[in-house]
Amino acid sequence: MCGIIGYVGKNPAVLVLLEGLERLEYRGYDSAGVALVENGHIFVEKKVGKIRELIRSLWGKPLKATIGIGHTRWATHGEPCEINAHPHTDMSGEIAVVHNGIIENYRELKEKLQAKGIEFKSQTDTEVIAHLISLYYEGDLLEAVMKTVPQLRGSYAFCVMTSREPHRIVGVRYGNPLVVGIGEDENFLASDIPAILPFTRHIIPLSDGEIVDLRIDSVDIYDTEGNRIVKDVISVPWDIISAEKGGFKHFMLKEIFEQPKAVGDTIKGYISRDYLLPFDLKSFRRILILACGTSYHAGLLGSYWMGKYLQIPVEVMYASEFRYADVPISDKDLVIAISQSGETADTRYSALSAKERGATVISLVNVMGSALDRESDYTLYTHAGPEIGVAATKTFTSQLAVLYSLAVSHSPKKDQLMERLSALPHLMEEVLGEAELIKKLALKYANKKNMLYLGRYLSYPIALEGALKLKEISYIHAEGYPAGEMKHGPIALIDESMPVMVIAPKDRVYEKVLSNIEEILTRRGTVIGLGFKEDKTLIGMSKDFIGMPEIFEDLSPFLSIIPLQLFAYYIADHLGLDVDQPRNLAKTVTVE
Amino acid sequence: MCGIIGYVGKNPAVLVLLEGLERLEYRGYDSAGVALVENGHIFVEKKVGKIRELIRSLWGKPLKATIGIGHTRWATHGEPCEINAHPHTDMSGEIAVVHNGIIENYRELKEKLQAKGIEFKSQTDTEVIAHLISLYYEGDLLEAVMKTVPQLRGSYAFCVMTSREPHRIVGVRYGNPLVVGIGEDENFLASDIPAILPFTRHIIPLSDGEIVDLRIDSVDIYDTEGNRIVKDVISVPWDIISAEKGGFKHFMLKEIFEQPKAVGDTIKGYISRDYLLPFDLKSFRRILILACGTSYHAGLLGSYWMGKYLQIPVEVMYASEFRYADVPISDKDLVIAISQSGETADTRYSALSAKERGATVISLVNVMGSALDRESDYTLYTHAGPEIGVAATKTFTSQLAVLYSLAVSHSPKKDQLMERLSALPHLMEEVLGEAELIKKLALKYANKKNMLYLGRYLSYPIALEGALKLKEISYIHAEGYPAGEMKHGPIALIDESMPVMVIAPKDRVYEKVLSNIEEILTRRGTVIGLGFKEDKTLIGMSKDFIGMPEIFEDLSPFLSIIPLQLFAYYIADHLGLDVDQPRNLAKTVTVE
Repeated sequence: MCGIIGYVGKNPAVLVLLEGLERLEYRGYDSAGVALVENGHIFVEKKVGKIRELIRSLWGKPLKATIGIGHTRWATHGEPCEINAHPHTDMSGEIAVVHNGIIENYRELKEKLQAKGIEFKSQTDTEVIAHLISLYYEGDLLEAVMKTVPQLRGSYAFCVMTSREPHRIVGVRYGNPLVVGIGEDENFLASDIPAILPFTRHIIPLSDGEIVDLRIDSVDIYDTEGNRIVKDVISVPWDIISAEKGGFKHFMLKEIFEQPKAVGDTIKGYISRDYLLPFDLKSFRRILILACGTSYHAGLLGSYWMGKYLQIPVEVMYASEFRYADVPISDKDLVIAISQSGETADTRYSALSAKERGATVISLVNVMGSALDRESDYTLYTHAGPEIGVAATKTFTSQLAVLYSLAVSHSPKKDQLMERLSALPHLMEEVLGEAELIKKLALKYANKKNMLYLGRYLSYPIALEGALKLKEISYIHAEGYPAGEMKHGPIALIDESMPVMVIAPKDRVYEKVLSNIEEILTRRGTVIGLGFKEDKTLIGMSKDFIGMPEIFEDLSPFLSIIPLQLFAYYIADHLGLDVDQPRNLAKTVTVE
Repeated sequence: MCGIIGYVGKNPAVLVLLEGLERLEYRGYDSAGVALVENGHIFVEKKVGKIRELIRSLWGKPLKATIGIGHTRWATHGEPCEINAHPHTDMSGEIAVVHNGIIENYRELKEKLQAKGIEFKSQTDTEVIAHLISLYYEGDLLEAVMKTVPQLRGSYAFCVMTSREPHRIVGVRYGNPLVVGIGEDENFLASDIPAILPFTRHIIPLSDGEIVDLRIDSVDIYDTEGNRIVKDVISVPWDIISAEKGGFKHFMLKEIFEQPKAVGDTIKGYISRDYLLPFDLKSFRRILILACGTSYHAGLLGSYWMGKYLQIPVEVMYASEFRYADVPISDKDLVIAISQSGETADTRYSALSAKERGATVISLVNVMGSALDRESDYTLYTHAGPEIGVAATKTFTSQLAVLYSLAVSHSPKKDQLMERLSALPHLMEEVLGEAELIKKLALKYANKKNMLYLGRYLSYPIALEGALKLKEISYIHAEGYPAGEMKHGPIALIDESMPVMVIAPKDRVYEKVLSNIEEILTRRGTVIGLGFKEDKTLIGMSKDFIGMPEIFEDLSPFLSIIPLQLFAYYIADHLGLDVDQPRNLAKTVTVE
């Protein structure tokens, strides 16, 4: 959830590190820091807050170092403060480490090190790495790292350098992403490709258990036994320009508006393919979808569509729950692992564990070359382009496009259904055209502390996703519920002060949802109706109403989610909150 | 969700109706009313609020009628007020109706009736029944009802009488429960057995589509074609005494304290049985659990246990979602339908639909002779005794006992595991011994408006259930989440004002949960830890701590739910809320 960058070359390292950190900031932003080898000594600067605080404090300092490491933090152990910020150093101050992920046995290691007289400055798990490397250091940094790694338990990536060998950085990937960037007379390390895209497009993604020795003119990769590994260099096609805000106030708003294109691009990738996968989905006993957060909601929708068109059992599980439950898995199961980044730790490890037990694993990711992409048997890509806003929007609707394509891929009506799908971008544009109206509506509810989102059938996952958006960026306690479950408990919450967003397109459950709305009105609840334009019955029952174009039942989620994304966005922006980097959240969750 | 009672006999009807309504009040209590045939005319009295309001207004009136119908209402259409309360009458005032459930096509019927010049007094769907019967009435009430029923769509039960034939009540069951009580020179109708237990134990539960013609000395039952049906009379073993509060301030508190006995009684019913069911659970492709509310949470726990011991795929679905999704079901599937009352509409119809498609259906109910009991292929009973508090407690832990027994029933370690299970009541007593401490703790948090409940693995359903209890009776917006999912969104809600209840027994996910707690603390969240006594690590991380005895991993949910039930109870009681009959809720949800 944090960001790492490392540089060794001929140019001033500090500038590379800061530019890289700014591009990583969406992954974590409690605090940030850099370490440089300046005149034979480790120089460290750390600041609480955003990268601009770090830039301010470094401004004007005559830093000439051409080697350095940097970090932006999303705290897991120890609250955000300068002492807990990275890089961390050993007692001598000659070794500096930046680290992502969690060292699970750090308490135990810390006690052992303290018993040897080593003093700790911070509350972080990271500091044990610096002290352990220092303990093993006998003139060769790579060797010291090789001895340290077997001591560590958990899931992590780290980079380390020492002033005693000011020409190399050693990096380790063990569960958390780390990529190498290859330049001319300069090389890079980063937790995430976009951080180094301004400098190079030639990338080597490391695999788990790999250790890299990075120098100005060489990149050597080893396994944990110390054997050299030869890896391919890949060229990244992503356009940096598309990661700029392009006139929008926030990335999130830009990405909401990019949905017609993202969904259109994704559909284009699938519409002409006879089969999406080289086997019959129906040959499996069941399909198990594993995902977290927004991807989990996409998975839920996928399960409804697959149930309808494939007629085999489809189950959806939170990846974090799957990992530790005893879910029976065998070669009769097909697993679909969904993760925008392809690096979500819970999803990756769940998929790996299913694969080990014989399941066929398909991943659905937005990032080529990501861990899940490499670790799964087959990959389906969303073509949404980079998503910078922490709250997922265009990757969600793009995931839906792939899951729908997959569900109907064996249907005799496939062509007709895919044709309907390709009409979506136009209708999504139409919904986006209502943004100003939704903004007005949002401001009326911006001072609420609680909300309920209700829907049945395909609108149930949309209720969950709409509530999650509001939670994530506005910090309003919004909860999504299947409308039919409301009377089994949550209806007790309903009174004049609790607005209820009800998603009610005219589909097979429309009448049932109207009955649920009657129950809310009977309890003097405030209903915001989201349904088809001109739906007079729903308009009559709603205090406020959001209209969307009429659409074929299957596809309403593609339209109904957009007003809910905008609703959350405009409330958060009105409250003056940091929409693209909401408190406590990180874009890619690489810890469990 | 409402309650119906009807009486025809030699005694004053008003007293029977009022006593019955008081016993039905836990099913709905927006408003109540009775209709009597007094001196050849229909006399109606209705009041908003509890039954005692109705009693007050009837007090001292010289009512001699020996036939009457009564109703207590949980509003679905039209807000609670005297006009919308039942009974409803036709324009002549000679026909009176009480009704449970929903007439789905009432708008259409109302328009047709209005076109004929009929004037409506209320906003209810019920009133159309009275007008339709009046329209068809030609001197024989049964005949008029037979003509009316085919016009109605939805799920309902109703009773009707007319001053023109002051010796008969006609009752119809169509989706909502209705039972006949047989006395000497008197007969009864009720939506629920306990309503008439003070008067008789001889019961005929009606099935869907059955119509009863009730007179002082005869009970004739017909199908919708008018054919006579002969049905068995069953004798009810329930003890009325156990439906009294027995010294506790509320039924809910009494029922929380009854859990060791309820679980013990339930275990006794299963421990000595070689097989719970006459077939091998593993012979099915998968098990599908269908339930709502608290029963859904029990089902989730069941799925973890069954995954572990049976090693076949187990899926849990909200019954209301299953009904309208295209979930593939065949004779290869085993369905377990869980409902305390056995009358929950969503669960019943889901189970019926699965059965039609070839699945074997097991029901898990607390009420013998209930609809689900009769409609399923096999029934497993909880032996919890009647549960009166609307918020389910002892039926939840009793459901867990059955589900666990079922999960381990084919295990080679079955005897050892069941022995551990039978040690539970003793340990549950120990947790109940801490009630005063939990009360003190609860009062500290009684003024909070929001809470999160977190847990992983077996503690995840407990987090959901703990949050539901707080929602139901204290109206605090509490939300349960899998602890591992928190970082994918809800963590944005965490700040000083949001208490987080974390359920963390020392099980396989304990270390992972500690990492999640660190993330909360890092964001200055307030953690209430619920774990094993003497767990110093957890105590050190928690602002407040609730200890429970150490227990075998599988069984921690039986203990951890108790403090959460008590926590919710003491907060609600402190806030002066009506614990046993929380606003908006009804005990048995017989509408969709």
